[in-house]
Amino acid sequence: MQIFEKCKTAFLFNDSAAHTLDSNFYRHAGADIDGSILVLKNNKKILITSRLNLSKAKKLCNFAIKLYPGGKTAPFLKKIAPSGNVGLDFDSISAARLLRLKKIFGKRIVDISEPLALQRVQKTSEEAGKIKKAAQISRKILSSLHLSSKESEIGVANRLKIECFKAGASLAYPPIVAAGKNSANPHHSPTSKKLGHGMVLIDFGAKYENYCSDLTRCFFLGACKKEKQKYGEAKQIFYEMLDSVHRFRTCAAAAKYPLTQMKKLGWPAPLHSIGHGIGLDIHELPYFYEKSREKLLPNSIFAIEPACYFSNFGVRYEDDILLTGKKAKLI
Amino acid sequence: MQIFEKCKTAFLFNDSAAHTLDSNFYRHAGADIDGSILVLKNNKKILITSRLNLSKAKKLCNFAIKLYPGGKTAPFLKKIAPSGNVGLDFDSISAARLLRLKKIFGKRIVDISEPLALQRVQKTSEEAGKIKKAAQISRKILSSLHLSSKESEIGVANRLKIECFKAGASLAYPPIVAAGKNSANPHHSPTSKKLGHGMVLIDFGAKYENYCSDLTRCFFLGACKKEKQKYGEAKQIFYEMLDSVHRFRTCAAAAKYPLTQMKKLGWPAPLHSIGHGIGLDIHELPYFYEKSREKLLPNSIFAIEPACYFSNFGVRYEDDILLTGKKAKLI
Repeated sequence: MQIFEKCKTAFLFNDSAAHTLDSNFYRHAGADIDGSILVLKNNKKILITSRLNLSKAKKLCNFAIKLYPGGKTAPFLKKIAPSGNVGLDFDSISAARLLRLKKIFGKRIVDISEPLALQRVQKTSEEAGKIKKAAQISRKILSSLHLSSKESEIGVANRLKIECFKAGASLAYPPIVAAGKNSANPHHSPTSKKLGHGMVLIDFGAKYENYCSDLTRCFFLGACKKEKQKYGEAKQIFYEMLDSVHRFRTCAAAAKYPLTQMKKLGWPAPLHSIGHGIGLDIHELPYFYEKSREKLLPNSIFAIEPACYFSNFGVRYEDDILLTGKKAKLI
Repeated sequence: MQIFEKCKTAFLFNDSAAHTLDSNFYRHAGADIDGSILVLKNNKKILITSRLNLSKAKKLCNFAIKLYPGGKTAPFLKKIAPSGNVGLDFDSISAARLLRLKKIFGKRIVDISEPLALQRVQKTSEEAGKIKKAAQISRKILSSLHLSSKESEIGVANRLKIECFKAGASLAYPPIVAAGKNSANPHHSPTSKKLGHGMVLIDFGAKYENYCSDLTRCFFLGACKKEKQKYGEAKQIFYEMLDSVHRFRTCAAAAKYPLTQMKKLGWPAPLHSIGHGIGLDIHELPYFYEKSREKLLPNSIFAIEPACYFSNFGVRYEDDILLTGKKAKLI
């Protein structure tokens, strides 16, 4: 395990307050036990939890479980990591937690956020299976979606949410439904605006067993000549990337061709990267932009999203792809 | 503003990666603009955002907006806070962010998480209105819920989610549906287990315009004599607290009476506090337990949840109350 090059013991925290799952905790513990610490040490795992979550932990974790002590935590944690570096996920723990742990472990603390993130780039077949299921649910819902000009953006977003839960999934993120001018805002939040007779951009991803998908489609409720043209261009760039991405060694190199294409087509400067890894998080390594440093690795999965935004509308085509050793394909 | 006793400038961050709203950012900015910083200085606000979120920010924020600079961020942030303490929410920012900011501001950095959290205890009437709406939606869904012994826990949880979205709300947290023995686990995650002919504990809260509600009810699909008795006791303790809480000055004092009652009734030692504040977060100040230090303040809103857990089942009665100056009432 790469993280053990940096530390003898790692502590991964799953915080209870936020009701959000800590992705690295989950990946290593294999379960979402809130208010708990996962200790990684000598290739063994120990879960530290409270009586509140004990029965859940016993059910879901087939490794050692300890209860938080009744008294002070510091001597207890020190006993678990009496010597050597203590690895913490600096991207995930709060500043307050870091300072509390510094009082216990001092200079022994090291940041292991980078190896933790890098571990997640190449997906296992089980992980790929869950992302595939999430992407399939999203695609199916989007492809069978019928829009009425009289419906509001919020109305459509609510329908998407309901369809998602009916399919046994949850939401990877709140759906974006942007009608007409609102599509010029890449992160538009749905409003009570009626769809009308223009273009509607929908960015919607289901989450299946904690794994995310991320898709965007544009729908046309009128002529929308210019919008259709730009959407066609975005879709073409997507498929050109799908066909070519396996030939490159780095994300920067893979991003170069579509970025050149966009310039040639006279698109405005891009507002976001052309793609990003997906998995337990909706945005994770690697990122596809000009200065990206990441290598392209087999079994990585990403959302590719060529997009252009003008003052009065924007288009984006986004779908999820799996890079195998020899090629890339829709997942 | 209390936070300005601790610092001249405050920086509140709303992170894009997690797709979760930063409650203190939202409360002060009045909008969820991701990947942005809200600067509080001399009672003025400045939003720092990227071109990606600019159109959204212009729509939703009626105060100064600046774009992140093209080059390095450090000189830019230093120019905004050239002198005096710089306040950060240590409970919300990551350890990695704290270390990056320490390189810019050094020892000028102070933690303002406590005044930020304390500011949120007493709700405005607008906030109370949103929590009321969230609680009403949850109550209505729970009171009209019909359960079948043949339905699975996951099936019921999905129905609750769908009803919630149909009502124009979202979820404050993933619903807990725990049949029979599973109710012994306070944080049970719904499974494919059929409800059967025993007791079903449902902990379900809608979120309305970012404000949370938090309710629990038990349902009986069979005789469930012991379960009904314990649930009746929990409900009675809830209503006794509702009637008496306004008489106390501190949360610890208010918690003492129900805790004594629970002991008298022979309940096992409690696994969680008897109540907590609700608002933008599902758990926020104040907390009701024996050693709690918080004062009881008018216009605060909390979930009260007397509960007891045995080895083969658990019951909990939970509802949301508003403390006015003179009394407490269901919100």
